[in-house]
Formats: sequence, C-alpha cells, structure tokens
Amino acid sequence: MSISDRVRKSMEVGSWIRRMFEEGVVLKQQYGDENVFDLSLGNPIMEPPAEFHEELRRLAERPEPGLHRYMENAGYVETRVAVAAYLSRESGIALRNDDIIMTCGAAGALNVVLKTILNLEDEVIIFAPYFPEFINYIENHGGIARTLPTDEEFIPRLDALETAIGPRTKAVLINSPNNPSGAVYNKAFLKSLGDLLTEKGRELGNPIFLISDEAYRKLTYDGLECPWVWSCYQQSIVIASYSKDLAVPGERIGYVVAHPGLEKHDELVAGFVHCNRILGFVNASAIMQHLVQHLQGVSISVSEYQRKRDFLYKNLTDMGYKAFKPQGAFYLFPKSPLEDDIAFVNQLRQWHTLTVPGQSFGSPGYIRISYCTDDRTLEGSLTSFEKAARKFNLL
Amino acid sequence: MSISDRVRKSMEVGSWIRRMFEEGVVLKQQYGDENVFDLSLGNPIMEPPAEFHEELRRLAERPEPGLHRYMENAGYVETRVAVAAYLSRESGIALRNDDIIMTCGAAGALNVVLKTILNLEDEVIIFAPYFPEFINYIENHGGIARTLPTDEEFIPRLDALETAIGPRTKAVLINSPNNPSGAVYNKAFLKSLGDLLTEKGRELGNPIFLISDEAYRKLTYDGLECPWVWSCYQQSIVIASYSKDLAVPGERIGYVVAHPGLEKHDELVAGFVHCNRILGFVNASAIMQHLVQHLQGVSISVSEYQRKRDFLYKNLTDMGYKAFKPQGAFYLFPKSPLEDDIAFVNQLRQWHTLTVPGQSFGSPGYIRISYCTDDRTLEGSLTSFEKAARKFNLL
Repeated sequence: MSISDRVRKSMEVGSWIRRMFEEGVVLKQQYGDENVFDLSLGNPIMEPPAEFHEELRRLAERPEPGLHRYMENAGYVETRVAVAAYLSRESGIALRNDDIIMTCGAAGALNVVLKTILNLEDEVIIFAPYFPEFINYIENHGGIARTLPTDEEFIPRLDALETAIGPRTKAVLINSPNNPSGAVYNKAFLKSLGDLLTEKGRELGNPIFLISDEAYRKLTYDGLECPWVWSCYQQSIVIASYSKDLAVPGERIGYVVAHPGLEKHDELVAGFVHCNRILGFVNASAIMQHLVQHLQGVSISVSEYQRKRDFLYKNLTDMGYKAFKPQGAFYLFPKSPLEDDIAFVNQLRQWHTLTVPGQSFGSPGYIRISYCTDDRTLEGSLTSFEKAARKFNLL
Repeated sequence: MSISDRVRKSMEVGSWIRRMFEEGVVLKQQYGDENVFDLSLGNPIMEPPAEFHEELRRLAERPEPGLHRYMENAGYVETRVAVAAYLSRESGIALRNDDIIMTCGAAGALNVVLKTILNLEDEVIIFAPYFPEFINYIENHGGIARTLPTDEEFIPRLDALETAIGPRTKAVLINSPNNPSGAVYNKAFLKSLGDLLTEKGRELGNPIFLISDEAYRKLTYDGLECPWVWSCYQQSIVIASYSKDLAVPGERIGYVVAHPGLEKHDELVAGFVHCNRILGFVNASAIMQHLVQHLQGVSISVSEYQRKRDFLYKNLTDMGYKAFKPQGAFYLFPKSPLEDDIAFVNQLRQWHTLTVPGQSFGSPGYIRISYCTDDRTLEGSLTSFEKAARKFNLL
C-alpha cells in the first residue's frame, strides 16, 4: 500500500529536479541565501503591474454580493466575453465567449484538454527539449507521450513529424515561446505544420489536434511577435495563462481557446467544461476571473527580462559557452561543456550556482538557466560559470 | 474524433442534472427569475464573514512583494502551520504542518488523494446516497467505485461493508455531514467503522484507507458536533474545504490532512504533493492561502441555515412528505411521493420548482432539495410542494 505504481514511477523520473531543489535549500542554509545563485526555477521575480493591484483594491474595498460564489463551469460569461474580444482584436480572428474556458492556469488548461480528448493509449507528440510536466499531463489521462527532435535552433523537425504520425496520434503539443529553449516559432513554420497536419488528418480520416501552449506569448524580445496559430490550422486549441503576463503564477488563472472552426466544436467545448468540473478544478478562482476581466492586454514590462537575457547571453557566450539566443520566455539553454549534463550541473552546484540538466527536458548535453531572477543572482552566478569555462577549456 | 469515450460516457451519466439546470434557465427567461424557485444547486447564498473581507482589504492595500508567486507544492508553510495548530487545538490530536497539503478545494483534494493511491482497477467503496462527483473522481484515476447501501437514517451499513471488502479495496470514502442526506455520523459509528477497517486490513495484509470528506464539517445543527475520525482510525485521510465555512466556493481553497499515524506517512504525503503539482492544480490560489492563514476557526453563522432547514422541514412534513431531519449540510432528502423520482422532479418543475432526482445520488425514490438559498425562493417553492402533496394524496 501507500502510493500507486504510476505515481511512484512519475516521482522517480522527476526526482532529479527535486533533489537539486532540496540540495539548494541545504546550500542556502549552509552558506546563506546571498551566496547561493538559484537559476533553477521559473518563478518570476517581478511584481504584478500597477493595474492589477488597483483592480484588487477596488474589489476588496467594495465587495459585491456573490463575488466568491460558484459560477458557470466554463467561467464567468463577462470574463470570457472580455477575453474573446481582446483576442479577436489582437489576432484578427473572430472569437466568441463560447470559444473560451477559464482554467486553473495553463497547467489546468492542458489537463482539461488532454482528459477530454484522450482515449487510453492515444499518442500525443511533443518535441525535445520539452517542458517535463507535459509527460505527466499526458500520462495522467492514459495517453502516451511520443518525443520527436528539433533542429539546431530548436524548431520541431517536420520530416520527423511526418514519419511519426500514425493512427494513434491524437494531438501534437507545441510550446512557443518555448520553455526551456527560448525559441519562438515563426508564421511560416506554423503554416507548414498546419499544412502537414491537415494532409495527415485527411490521409488518416481523422483530424489531428494541434495544442499550442502559449503561456509565454507576451514574453518575446527585440520586437518579435509571437504569431497566432488560428490562421494556420483550424483544428487548434490554444492554452494561455496570466501567470507570466501579470506575474501571478501562484493565483492559477489561464484559459483554453477552442478554434471556432474545430470539427465538432460545441461537443468538444462541452467536454472541456465537463472535465474542468470533474477533474476537481471546478473553475479558476472567482476573484481572479473578476480581476482579469478588466486587465486584458495589461502586462509586465518585457524590457526587464530582455535586459537580463542580454546580460546573461553576452557574458556566457563571451566565456565561450555555445547558446541559442532566446527570442522569448525567460530561459537560456546552452550546450553543456561536458557531455554529461548532470555532471556539469553538479560542478556548478559545488560553486553554489543551481541550474537544471537538459536531460530533464529530453535533451541531454544542455543545461537550463532561468533568468527570471534578480540581478544580484545573475551577476553572482557568473563566477561559477567562469570557473567552469576555465576548467573545461572554453576560455 | 472529438471527445474521448470515457468523457462521453461520464457526460451522459451526468446529463440529467445539467438538463435540469438548462431547463431552469429557460424557465427563468420565460417566467422571470422571481417566479422560478431553484432548489437544485448547492451554491450558498450567504456572503463571507466580515473577517474575510477585512483580511482581503488588508492584503490589497499593502501588497507584499512575492504575494502572488509560486510557493512550495504543499502550500505556504505558514498557512499549513496555522491549519495544523487550529486542528490540533480543536481535535486534541497533535498535527504538524507536514500533515497538511493545501488544495484547490475539497474536489481538488479528493482528486489528489485518489490519483496518489489508486492503481488501475483498485476499488473505492462509497455509500448511497453519495455526492455524484465521487464516481467521476474515482474513475478519473482508473479506480472503480463500488456503491453500498445506508440504513433508513442514511448511516452506512457496516454488515454490507464487511462483506464487500476484498483484496482490491483500496479505500472507503465517507462524507459527513452528508450531501445529499444531511446525516452526521456519530463517534460510535466512526469507531465501529474504524475497528472493522483495522480488522479487515489485518486480514488482507494491507491497510485500507478511510477518506473522510468533511467539506460541511462546520454546518451542523442543534448544537451537534461532527466527531473527528482521527481518534477512530489511524489510516485516515481527511478532506476539508473553506467553501462552506467562509462562503467562498468560487475561490477553490481546501486541504488534505494525512493522519500522523498513517503507514508510510511521509511517502504518501510526498505523493500528494507530487500529484497536486502534476494534476495541474500546482497549488491553491496564493492570495486565498494568505487569507485563510488568518481565518482559522472563522465561519459563517450556522443559525441562518438552521432556520432555513427548520422552515423547510416543518412545512414539508406538515404537508405529509416523509423526510429525515438533516443534522448538517444544507440539503433535505425527502422520499419522492412517486416511485419514479424523475417523474416527480419533472412535475415540480412544471410548477417552476427545481430539485434533483435521488437517482443522481444513487438513491432512486428520493429527491434532493438544496436550502442554501434565499427565503423568498424557499417560501415560493412551497406552493409547488403543496400542489404535489394534494395531487399525490399526501395531504
């Protein structure tokens, strides 16, 4: 007795990151917070924008009756109307509130979608490097995660995808801006991906869903815009979150967008709403739904993250590290100077800098550095990176 | 393609309540809100206590840095310390923060626990009438719900339980105060249940979990106290929620309590924390965790609900309805005057009163009336109940 076999297996697989986290806690106790440089977690250091605080104060000062009650399982209509109007304006695709389901963050949204569509042993294709939770989410609902490679700029390889798609393929799950690589997929790529999925779906007599996790959509750099999948593929489901835009990851608010052109759109949306309920989310927090209704388009300043990216990228590449320059999100994913990325991460840790090995993301030989941290931590970590660069002959 | 077979089946089973809800919406549009008496939903009409509003104002006026960030996957330590201290004081059992995991309401808590413990096709025993979502929650994680009967006062039949427990029995799930019956299990019953589970667990060489859903713990009447399971059975897991106590069901905050004496306690808690994360909840909302830290023991006034219960119970029994007098929660579960409870519910609906048939709760021949509604609705519904009493010869 105790925990189930599946959960035990999932805990063992995830244990490396947890061990790192725990050893970080020990390091901080031993050497003091200020002498440990934790670049392992994606927990944004920024505070929510002023508009968020104002709205919260407004709600708190004049509590309306019923503000904290249950609402429709899809979320408040007025919130979904506001989201649909904002997205329609931004994307040029006409969306209605019936295309939007408010969820417990992007993680809740993904679980709701996967629960709704997956029969046992259906396959969902993901691309390495991937957000490791994708595998848990897929397996939660009896699905099988199939991992395919990306090219040297971390763009999914469509030739590999073409070969891999088969009768059990239910969905392809992409994430752009990407955690951990920082890649942003351009419109031409999305169009080719959409065309391939259309062709393959026709061939197999069953449309393939494209699930597009856009939790980092607002975090793109150098004026780059993250293109919309809607004009590229009709059978698409977008996953969104306010965690990064508003710097409120602890509040668990995001949403699903069902493309209006989805086959059996209404049945699918009814399924999402049902699964939102039965998975135990019920809804996203009522107060947060009220807040975001009035915060469409509001976002933290991206320039801060861009400055941090530039600082880290320049310093590391000057030391001889090979890295793709992130176009979005807040991670750098450089090559590990050692083939064994775990050994390299352990070496950095001995010098009090915490990172995550690439093999946690399906890409051994890399490490992930999170730069959504304060400048002191970023600056302090450079000593370890420089020591490592000398030791492993990069400099 | 579209939704999965399992979700389709679950939607069909649940469709009766949804249809009722939707027909209620149509009725309200046709006849006006004030002429439709909706007793179908358990969405409390009460407002949160003043202390809740004060705490929210305090947080909104002086936003502390990091207030909305990710926290540990078990929830904030300071919140869990406060919960453990409160429960220890109330129950006399020494609990530590390591026994508490903050969750997305009781629904989130139940899904986390079931995901953690269930291997495929493990059985969870529930008792009719039951909260219908229990079946969805169990099946979400590959478990099998096995339903056993209760006696005429809605207390689980231990003789039936003794026969039903077998090698695949992983857990027994109880709910007291009970939705929909209003029964509160007394200490003697819990002790006998605990003894039976101890004996059976020993016999089978594997402890059986007792999962105690106590979402309505604070809502008991006539001075009755809801006893604690901890002194009755060590292998117990308590599910709690602030939804009813603080009248904030839309905010999704509750917790799991792992009995300190649980076999493999720490592994189990690590499993809960892991599943809290991978199911997509991640945590309960950060702001709500901060709030409840300072609201331990605060609760809405039960006397309001007791008054509504007394009003409804007296009026309906005076009309000749047979009903168990609820000891807690906010539902009345009278016998349907027609054997076919759906036909009776349909009859009431024609007179603009909305209730739910007992067969949705596994108990045909009953109906559920929710009285967590305003007095006008309760009073207005009496005409329909009286018409029905005359038509079906109760009066």
